[in-house]
Amino acid sequence: MSERKVALVVGAGDATGGAIARRFAREGFVTCVTRRTLEPLAPLLEQIRAAGGEAHGFGSDARVEAQVVSLFEHIEREIGPIEVLVFNIGGNVNFPIAETTERVFRKVWEMSCLSGFLNAREAAKVMQARGRGTILFTGATASLRGGSGFSAFAAGKHGLRAVAQSMARELGAKNIHVAHVVIDGGIDTAFIQERNPERYATLKPQDGILNPEAIAENYWHLHCQHRSAWTHELDLRPWMERW
Amino acid sequence: MSERKVALVVGAGDATGGAIARRFAREGFVTCVTRRTLEPLAPLLEQIRAAGGEAHGFGSDARVEAQVVSLFEHIEREIGPIEVLVFNIGGNVNFPIAETTERVFRKVWEMSCLSGFLNAREAAKVMQARGRGTILFTGATASLRGGSGFSAFAAGKHGLRAVAQSMARELGAKNIHVAHVVIDGGIDTAFIQERNPERYATLKPQDGILNPEAIAENYWHLHCQHRSAWTHELDLRPWMERW
Amino acid sequence: MSERKVALVVGAGDATGGAIARRFAREGFVTCVTRRTLEPLAPLLEQIRAAGGEAHGFGSDARVEAQVVSLFEHIEREIGPIEVLVFNIGGNVNFPIAETTERVFRKVWEMSCLSGFLNAREAAKVMQARGRGTILFTGATASLRGGSGFSAFAAGKHGLRAVAQSMARELGAKNIHVAHVVIDGGIDTAFIQERNPERYATLKPQDGILNPEAIAENYWHLHCQHRSAWTHELDLRPWMERW
Amino acid sequence: MSERKVALVVGAGDATGGAIARRFAREGFVTCVTRRTLEPLAPLLEQIRAAGGEAHGFGSDARVEAQVVSLFEHIEREIGPIEVLVFNIGGNVNFPIAETTERVFRKVWEMSCLSGFLNAREAAKVMQARGRGTILFTGATASLRGGSGFSAFAAGKHGLRAVAQSMARELGAKNIHVAHVVIDGGIDTAFIQERNPERYATLKPQDGILNPEAIAENYWHLHCQHRSAWTHELDLRPWMERW
Repeated sequence: MSERKVALVVGAGDATGGAIARRFAREGFVTCVTRRTLEPLAPLLEQIRAAGGEAHGFGSDARVEAQVVSLFEHIEREIGPIEVLVFNIGGNVNFPIAETTERVFRKVWEMSCLSGFLNAREAAKVMQARGRGTILFTGATASLRGGSGFSAFAAGKHGLRAVAQSMARELGAKNIHVAHVVIDGGIDTAFIQERNPERYATLKPQDGILNPEAIAENYWHLHCQHRSAWTHELDLRPWMERW
Repeated sequence: MSERKVALVVGAGDATGGAIARRFAREGFVTCVTRRTLEPLAPLLEQIRAAGGEAHGFGSDARVEAQVVSLFEHIEREIGPIEVLVFNIGGNVNFPIAETTERVFRKVWEMSCLSGFLNAREAAKVMQARGRGTILFTGATASLRGGSGFSAFAAGKHGLRAVAQSMARELGAKNIHVAHVVIDGGIDTAFIQERNPERYATLKPQDGILNPEAIAENYWHLHCQHRSAWTHELDLRPWMERW
Repeated sequence: MSERKVALVVGAGDATGGAIARRFAREGFVTCVTRRTLEPLAPLLEQIRAAGGEAHGFGSDARVEAQVVSLFEHIEREIGPIEVLVFNIGGNVNFPIAETTERVFRKVWEMSCLSGFLNAREAAKVMQARGRGTILFTGATASLRGGSGFSAFAAGKHGLRAVAQSMARELGAKNIHVAHVVIDGGIDTAFIQERNPERYATLKPQDGILNPEAIAENYWHLHCQHRSAWTHELDLRPWMERW
Repeated sequence: MSERKVALVVGAGDATGGAIARRFAREGFVTCVTRRTLEPLAPLLEQIRAAGGEAHGFGSDARVEAQVVSLFEHIEREIGPIEVLVFNIGGNVNFPIAETTERVFRKVWEMSCLSGFLNAREAAKVMQARGRGTILFTGATASLRGGSGFSAFAAGKHGLRAVAQSMARELGAKNIHVAHVVIDGGIDTAFIQERNPERYATLKPQDGILNPEAIAENYWHLHCQHRSAWTHELDLRPWMERW
């Protein structure tokens, strides 16, 4: 009997998280996926199961410590050891500084940074005990650059990148691979498509928008890297993107 | 009668904030200094007044939006227009990731990032209305690097740097100078002296520890820069520091 | 009849270049490998051929424009279209600044930067005409950091990284993927093994030295990336490396 | 009798080098200025002398080791100890990669990087012997970013920055201050004015172009920094610049 291994994708609400879950499921991982509410995960769970995979969905608020702790306990006890954590929650907003409320600033940070810390810390605990694991964070252009109007989003994403770096430096030597993926461009989601259908219709057919399956391939690659040559950070952008 | 101009130093609890306040007071600025409680500000206020300056102290929690808003309102109404804001609150802690509590992670972020955002936003509001001003942030090594054990501190400081960058890009063209100072080394404070007296005794006489007056000189220089040649970021470290 | 595609590895003198050549040969690429003199390439050519691949060796000085131009002409005319260029020449030296001669500074730059430019430019010419291709540069820690004593090596490697970035920004939209790999650690070569056999004996068995085959896997991955999600830069280091 | 101190500005051909020379002359420095030919230095020498300063001009090719060595020997022997070196030679060009000739790539590197290395190395030698000194490098946007078409210029400027960093790390602890100034915007020169007179007429009156005197003020500030708080790198750009 082969070993059960869990890949947990926190924030599988958009196209990217779902594609990553399917990619790991395809390789035999038991896939656990979360978003704030369970219902919208149904199609993803069905896709994975239809392809012969095992999938578990959780409605769980990644910003709330107690929920995160109990999610990890539940998975470890009932489903299997978490071999891979993918943290994939965003929170992209843009406001002039004078119109950025304390509430927005705090919420965006809780979504994009605090919840990343909480989930990665719980993963680190179980992985350290086993002496192995992979923790992957989804970053954005704002992880590296504080653009005009992005004080809240860039603060959250810069913070998440700091957590990733700090964890990589502590956990690398414990055989836990921590990596950060900077996604520098629009991802092919329903949101993008609806917000600007004309631009979408121009870009999509020529691969000018990041394909979630293509993103997922890179997460899988990071997980597979030989430990003598681990990547901590890579960027992903469409070939035609200006940067 | 010459124009009254206020320099507000938020976080004048340590050596750096005090030195910056004295430096601006020396140039004729009305100096407002804050820390969480008023009492410990007494010596600083005395120093500035003894040197012929005007100084006002405030016990105010920089992490609490209502207190920040009312501080700015009070100063603008009762004391004078805020020409310069210096944000100087730190929060340096180091814990292994598994021992970093949610409480610590959140507190450090509130001190080092959220409060910087809140104060700078209020400054931006009054400065935009006048079409000029200077906002200076104090950063650290952790602003640029997530070292092992520094997930909380680096997340806060990275976030603060993102806020500074984002504001600089929005506010530069409105004639508001936003800059970020990366202090990369130990500062000459009572804390440093007490924690490691032997190291202090070795380094201090040979200028191996950052002198707060020397730091303050650079804040003053940033404020004085001609607007055709503004600096957004500079680093400061002792000549003998390894980096 | 399937299409012939050439992968050209410039600087196949060390372990990395050879491993990359074998990796692409395994996928059906016609492999062309170069170093300054032809003889030392013999074992590599044999390995590739023994595995059923097609391999061509060239003794060619990558720093000499005329030789580079004629190499590209020869391969394109006689062997096949160059689909992939890997530039893999180093030149790591360390001298105090006062002992760094003009001759060393210039030689290291010619090896690590000028020759990268020349080869990549010739590749860009043929690839632009075909509207596709992949150009991969090997970087090092010194690509990002000018360490003490590394003025010559870091100047060359920083320069190479600038070439890679500039080309990526120009050629991306022409469907040519340009990427830069920052190798941040010791690679498993005869040189490393001989210079410090004890350290080697400690690190090698626990994957503390970069495995060339593992490095090569990443070059292959970069080439395979879907063009909606191209990486421009990634780092590679052993799990236990301090950074 | 007060001590004679020399400030040597290599590349005083443009507005910036001249302004820096005048700034240091104003503080009592004996000023030595160079460019490839002596004649165009005449107005600058006259300005400094008319203001009561001592100025010496040299026609000297900063890319030629023998000329650099003999320049330093001459100044040290005949004029005075070199306390400050400012390296200020550029070489901004833009060509598509396929049209960037080996000759251009090499020339731009010799101007912007090799000559910086040669001059700074000679300065390091005399400064190390005295246990003090300041070496300041002029960088550009291309020091940090390889833009499309800038392979030659960015390679040179990245290389120069690597030299500056490497020297700072080696020489800091020898009491020699090495700093790098990133000038991120157009400088007010005759060249800029002539190339685009309309843009110049719009930007200049509102300080949208870097004022050389304002730049020089920052070089002076760097030289004056207390050694407990040295800056290695700062950026300078007009308030209204987009970045």
